[in-house]
Amino acid sequence: MVKLTALYRQPEEVQEFETRYFEGHLPLARKMPALLKMEVTRFTETPMGDHPPYYLQADLYFASKEALDAAMKSPEGRAAAKDVMSFAGNLVTMIVGDVKGDA
Amino acid sequence: MVKLTALYRQPEEVQEFETRYFEGHLPLARKMPALLKMEVTRFTETPMGDHPPYYLQADLYFASKEALDAAMKSPEGRAAAKDVMSFAGNLVTMIVGDVKGDA
Repeated sequence: MVKLTALYRQPEEVQEFETRYFEGHLPLARKMPALLKMEVTRFTETPMGDHPPYYLQADLYFASKEALDAAMKSPEGRAAAKDVMSFAGNLVTMIVGDVKGDA
Repeated sequence: MVKLTALYRQPEEVQEFETRYFEGHLPLARKMPALLKMEVTRFTETPMGDHPPYYLQADLYFASKEALDAAMKSPEGRAAAKDVMSFAGNLVTMIVGDVKGDA
C-alpha cells in the first residue's frame, strides 16, 4: 500500500483554513479515484508538551504507486491539487511513501 | 484515537540507521503497553518527483491521550525513547495528534 501524506504547518488564519480545508478541500480529495482510505490527524502537542511543528496531517491511501499516480493525474486529483494550492500552498508539504502496515 | 508520530529525516549512515531502527528500535516500541497499532512508512519521493524531506514515518496508535501518556511513562516507553535518542536524536521529530479516522 502507498500513501500520499500532506503535512500542514500552522496557518495564520485558523478559521479560514478550517473552513477551506474541511468544507472545501476534503470533499474534493475524497473524490479521487481508487482512494482506499483517508486519515486526518490534528496535531496537538509534542511529547515534551511543546507546540507541534505541524498543524494537521492527511494521509490518502492507495493500493499501489500506479493507482496513486493515476489518481493524481485524474480530473478529480487535479481539482484537489489546485484547490489546496489556492489556500495552503505555503503551508503544505506533500510526500509519497510505501506503507509497511504493522511493521 | 490518538497517535504518536515520529518523522525521521534522512540519516547519513543509512545502513546503520536501518539496522538500529528495524532490528533494535521497533521491537522495543512494540512492547509499549496499550499500543493498538503501529504503521511504518518509507517515504520515497514527493509528488513532484523530488527527494522527500523525511526518510521514514512511524505512527503509534492508542485509544486515548491517557493511554498514550501512560505508555510513554511506562518502563517500556522509557526504554524505547532512550533507544531512539541513542541513534536518531538528531533526526527525529515527534508529534502527538488526534486521529479523525476517515474524516
